[in-house]
Amino acid sequence: MTSRMDHAGRRERLRAVAAERGLDAVLVTDLLNVRYLTGFTGSNGAFLLRTDGTDLFGTDGRYTTQAGTQVPDVELVVDRSTVAALAGAAAGVGRLGYESHVVTVDGLRALEQAAEGVELVSVRRAVEALRAVKDPDEVEALRRACTVADQALAELAAEGALRPGRTELAVGRELDARMLALGAEAPSFETIVAAGANSAIPHHRPDGTELRGGDFLKLDFGATVDGYHSDMTRTVVLGHPAAWQTEVYALVRESQAAGRAALAVGADVTAVDAASRDVIAAAGHAEHFTHGLGHGVGLEIHEAPGISALGAGTLAAGMAVTVEPGVYLPGHGGVRIEDTLIVTDGEPELLTLTSKELLVL
Amino acid sequence: MTSRMDHAGRRERLRAVAAERGLDAVLVTDLLNVRYLTGFTGSNGAFLLRTDGTDLFGTDGRYTTQAGTQVPDVELVVDRSTVAALAGAAAGVGRLGYESHVVTVDGLRALEQAAEGVELVSVRRAVEALRAVKDPDEVEALRRACTVADQALAELAAEGALRPGRTELAVGRELDARMLALGAEAPSFETIVAAGANSAIPHHRPDGTELRGGDFLKLDFGATVDGYHSDMTRTVVLGHPAAWQTEVYALVRESQAAGRAALAVGADVTAVDAASRDVIAAAGHAEHFTHGLGHGVGLEIHEAPGISALGAGTLAAGMAVTVEPGVYLPGHGGVRIEDTLIVTDGEPELLTLTSKELLVL
Repeated sequence: MTSRMDHAGRRERLRAVAAERGLDAVLVTDLLNVRYLTGFTGSNGAFLLRTDGTDLFGTDGRYTTQAGTQVPDVELVVDRSTVAALAGAAAGVGRLGYESHVVTVDGLRALEQAAEGVELVSVRRAVEALRAVKDPDEVEALRRACTVADQALAELAAEGALRPGRTELAVGRELDARMLALGAEAPSFETIVAAGANSAIPHHRPDGTELRGGDFLKLDFGATVDGYHSDMTRTVVLGHPAAWQTEVYALVRESQAAGRAALAVGADVTAVDAASRDVIAAAGHAEHFTHGLGHGVGLEIHEAPGISALGAGTLAAGMAVTVEPGVYLPGHGGVRIEDTLIVTDGEPELLTLTSKELLVL
Repeated sequence: MTSRMDHAGRRERLRAVAAERGLDAVLVTDLLNVRYLTGFTGSNGAFLLRTDGTDLFGTDGRYTTQAGTQVPDVELVVDRSTVAALAGAAAGVGRLGYESHVVTVDGLRALEQAAEGVELVSVRRAVEALRAVKDPDEVEALRRACTVADQALAELAAEGALRPGRTELAVGRELDARMLALGAEAPSFETIVAAGANSAIPHHRPDGTELRGGDFLKLDFGATVDGYHSDMTRTVVLGHPAAWQTEVYALVRESQAAGRAALAVGADVTAVDAASRDVIAAAGHAEHFTHGLGHGVGLEIHEAPGISALGAGTLAAGMAVTVEPGVYLPGHGGVRIEDTLIVTDGEPELLTLTSKELLVL
């Protein structure tokens, strides 16, 4: 079931970055970055990229077989002290890049001992920067992850599982179990189910609260498929919506549409945030939208780019991002609507296909 | 559902360690260590312990409400730059302990800037050392986690879900879904289901392999309850066992019993490993038992103490550990039997209660 992704192409992109920065090698120790560059999914692995093309993949004895299957195209080093072994293999080079946002203080000391005489240079988030732009294999994995989430919610709604009397916790567990049954490896994160006044809490943790008629029910959840995370929020109403609920919902929906429309190659992330936020501010609810508009998704549920007033940078084709404005009225209830989308040269591609009409259950 | 644990007692134990080491404060940034000391379960939190007793808990605006509920007894600091804010609050102290195995190179630079003039001193794994010895609340959470796993397996076996023709992946997903339905927050780790020759791979990842009559079926899985991880392996036979299967099973079972019997206060971890390993070695299978005997479990699935030939240290009452010898015959099949137990002044307390008779399905 592990799909074949273009890991070699990704390594060449990193090699170009390394050469440009005057590095002779880069030691990648962030496990997700290692997975991105090699396909390895075990719990211990590291990757040494050398600008001369003689790369090494390291892991320990538990993963010898798995490494042979998942990383057939990179020379394998099996060593209990995996990172030290790769650092030792880099001992000859002049300038060795390392991930200073990942390597701990103890870890750097160990690297200095293992790669004696080498100049250690931080590469910062070089691999994360590559990861922000998805290749077609990654988009396909995200598409499948979003489909699982769409389908799980559709099944629960069709079966009447979202009804008064059930608890948030029961609904959340059922949603999780359904995603697993549909082929997810895991939920993307701790599923948020927030009923009634709890829907006004942006990141409410599901508890024994019972769903009641007239409540908003906010569901924020996703599925992980092949390591890629989908992320979607829908807010529904249990029974007839009150006028204030229809109003708030329409406002957030309009704001979310404005945010999606602003997703374009070259758009500044602060401008995308503003496009959505301005709609809510114009309706007098600026202080009820208390978080950023969105974030990148991929091997992590939160990754580059961040889309918020405090963000920096511009969008590029192939970025996978969420757009998720919300209006939260403390003590009453809140609405968030969130999609996962791919930035393209034209219209963004919508991956989460569940309707955004106000669903009345 | 979050149980009330004795976080204040844990903080006092850390305070004693800090005072003993001549530290004025300790900045705890490992999220599980923060959870252990405060009860906070969100995704961003830090804890500043001061030997004068004026502690601070820090998080960001998303978790203001949750922090109030989960950490009612420590002064709260809400700041987007949580760690920097706590480091800044420590700026007056002389010697500030930090976790050098957790803080990254970039993170240390930020600490140095935020806590100007303070002497930063590594505390190493001081909190992890405390965590190795479980208090009664933690033992109770582990007990519940083990019960969920026991019950999930019992239900699957009773329903005939472990039968020829099904795939490893289907069985694994069903086991996971069952644990969730029984109240687990999540599986403890990626559930291992290994049929036939795959059972000879210690950490096989479930795939489309079909279970066949006569196969060994190895199941290594656990449930997380209140953050605590259970860990259990059982190996069953589908249909009549061959003579070699009965033999290998009996050997591993004897080895596992010897390992459990060696769990005693003051026992050196290498001696516990040897007690179990010697049984397998005496039968000529030394080279087929390729990993350590066990490990601590708790807020992490692998934590202190490690029980292996390369380990160091002795057991103490209240430690929660696994005992999991295996014999793996490449190309044929393998057996592992694993329990989670608590070290006590007398007999260890067995938490995973599923039978260790060879189950023939």
